[in-house]
Amino acid sequence: MNVEVRPRPTLRSDAVSKPAIADCDIHPYPKDKALFRYLEPRWREHLETYGARARQGYLGGPAYPKGQPDAARRDAYPPDGGKPGSDLDFMRAQHLDPNNVALGILNPLRAGQGLQNLDLSAAICRAINDWQVAEWTSQEKRLKASVVVPYEDPVTSAAEIDRRAGDANFAQVLLLSRTAEPLGQRRYWPIYEAAERANLAVGIHAFGYGGYPVSGSGWPSFYLEEMVGHAQNTQALLTSMVIEGVFEKFPRLRVVLIESGFAWLAALMWRLDKVWSRLRDETPHLKRLPSEYIRSQVWVTTQPVEEPEPRRHLRDAIDWIGWDRLLFATDYPHWDFDDPARAFPLRMETAEREGLFLNNARTVYGQA
Amino acid sequence: MNVEVRPRPTLRSDAVSKPAIADCDIHPYPKDKALFRYLEPRWREHLETYGARARQGYLGGPAYPKGQPDAARRDAYPPDGGKPGSDLDFMRAQHLDPNNVALGILNPLRAGQGLQNLDLSAAICRAINDWQVAEWTSQEKRLKASVVVPYEDPVTSAAEIDRRAGDANFAQVLLLSRTAEPLGQRRYWPIYEAAERANLAVGIHAFGYGGYPVSGSGWPSFYLEEMVGHAQNTQALLTSMVIEGVFEKFPRLRVVLIESGFAWLAALMWRLDKVWSRLRDETPHLKRLPSEYIRSQVWVTTQPVEEPEPRRHLRDAIDWIGWDRLLFATDYPHWDFDDPARAFPLRMETAEREGLFLNNARTVYGQA
Repeated sequence: MNVEVRPRPTLRSDAVSKPAIADCDIHPYPKDKALFRYLEPRWREHLETYGARARQGYLGGPAYPKGQPDAARRDAYPPDGGKPGSDLDFMRAQHLDPNNVALGILNPLRAGQGLQNLDLSAAICRAINDWQVAEWTSQEKRLKASVVVPYEDPVTSAAEIDRRAGDANFAQVLLLSRTAEPLGQRRYWPIYEAAERANLAVGIHAFGYGGYPVSGSGWPSFYLEEMVGHAQNTQALLTSMVIEGVFEKFPRLRVVLIESGFAWLAALMWRLDKVWSRLRDETPHLKRLPSEYIRSQVWVTTQPVEEPEPRRHLRDAIDWIGWDRLLFATDYPHWDFDDPARAFPLRMETAEREGLFLNNARTVYGQA
Repeated sequence: MNVEVRPRPTLRSDAVSKPAIADCDIHPYPKDKALFRYLEPRWREHLETYGARARQGYLGGPAYPKGQPDAARRDAYPPDGGKPGSDLDFMRAQHLDPNNVALGILNPLRAGQGLQNLDLSAAICRAINDWQVAEWTSQEKRLKASVVVPYEDPVTSAAEIDRRAGDANFAQVLLLSRTAEPLGQRRYWPIYEAAERANLAVGIHAFGYGGYPVSGSGWPSFYLEEMVGHAQNTQALLTSMVIEGVFEKFPRLRVVLIESGFAWLAALMWRLDKVWSRLRDETPHLKRLPSEYIRSQVWVTTQPVEEPEPRRHLRDAIDWIGWDRLLFATDYPHWDFDDPARAFPLRMETAEREGLFLNNARTVYGQA
């Protein structure tokens, strides 16, 4: 695809002076029926006849507000039609070029990951992976794909990871946060084992659905509660991964928590360390403080950035977590996009800024 | 009961020089069968015949570690026998006197609150309330009782609160954190309405069980995860109370979150404010930022105190929440007791220290 002939946004001249960034959460969508080209006929027919059943009929968690169709920025619809995130040229013109994105991680959602029919789940995931390479990463070297896997079938997931291992189009394995059981549990370990073997980070993106309410308190009434609840749910899955011993068992595993906020992480580490220090004999498989596993093997993406008043509290919160743990992300093309020029109105040292906006991502995704 | 003749601990001479404190989480237990004296014969017979069924057979959440029987400090067994927390004289000698507790809030657990049989739940709660007055608060003016209520039957709960209204033996209404539905939901509003009418704070103590796993991720494997999970569960119930409009509807309601930690509160307020600012039209019943309701109507007890390294981070976390929001608590006689002399190894201003250890509690519990 020839970048010289596509339309340029007016921002282009400004953009060249902007520092290069990594965007660790970009959502590509297939153009109408595009995915069908990558699916075996058997599964195309299955989808036409039976559709896709998510766990308990609840597809991907509750929908984003209907007032933002496709969960999208209102300006993110490609001029030639199609869904936001479905047109590479438009993504370049609207986001990659003007924001000087040097590394963009593709996180396909609604990628068949949580479906009840595990073979259908695996077939759609494989098609999404083929589609990412054919229509995105092979066309645009700044973008890297995620291996989406049918995570409720970890053995099949591991086979899909093995299939993509060594393929430079892929930079991570993608899971969603709301699974049938807590993500630290042993049934999911084949995924972590395969990711470690392939030297791929494991990204865990908010959303999905495992059959339970977002909180242990039961079913909330409002979408607002679901949105805020992702942070609590992610605290629980990270707790599960630490306490079950995932990081002890897979010491080279790198986990990225995506779109669940980050300001809660310090308080969680404090609490984990305190409780574990008193009850550690329940988990003799753990050799280090919970926070030590997190500080060496877990990263968090920044979007949606918390916005305390006064803002210096945000600096403190990052100081506690560690500046090397944060990965900038925009969530493009979604409605709650964080603009890299405005998302961090903080004083930062040059090394802090470069780490947060680019170098931490290069490290965790092996793109140095 | 004559305090002059009971045994004095050797610490007594030190204690007189200690500053007075409030302890907002003391757990009294009935002596063997003591509760039966306060129960109607019908319910005594019922308990002998049928026992008490908690929701889905799961009594009060998973047990504390068996290595700490009765969830207790090993030194908390009264010399004359009985469970920890069952002997007022021993509680005076071991805790109230040496720690100079000027105000102690009794939070009875296993008080029948979450039982499936709502009439049995109400009968046990009423008996526990009578027992607290007869055997505790009428004997010891430093102690104040909690009105325990059968919270899954809010109308009956409100009647129990009305019955205790104006009785100076009681300082709060007590709920547990894991309920059948999130605590902000409208079914629970009669409780808040009655508490506001009675001018009693509502304490929400960790534990209980509502039928769901502690996290939205499903059932955890380890007790450690349950312990850490209380913090997430409490974040969810506070979110529910804010977003459903409990604080807007009941502007004089005072809520105390007990034994769920507190360092997470600032991050939750930031996230609530950010999400609500963008999606506020989902909840037109809310007139103020979520954090404003929390900062004016919610308090948190300190135990178990988070222990970050370096400790100054704890100071920062309290700065964010507000020193006027914190209430000291020990959890006596439980195993994870926080010693008032050691729990806060921080530099504090005199006003901060006096607020945290005593004056905030006097304000919220109306004991000034």
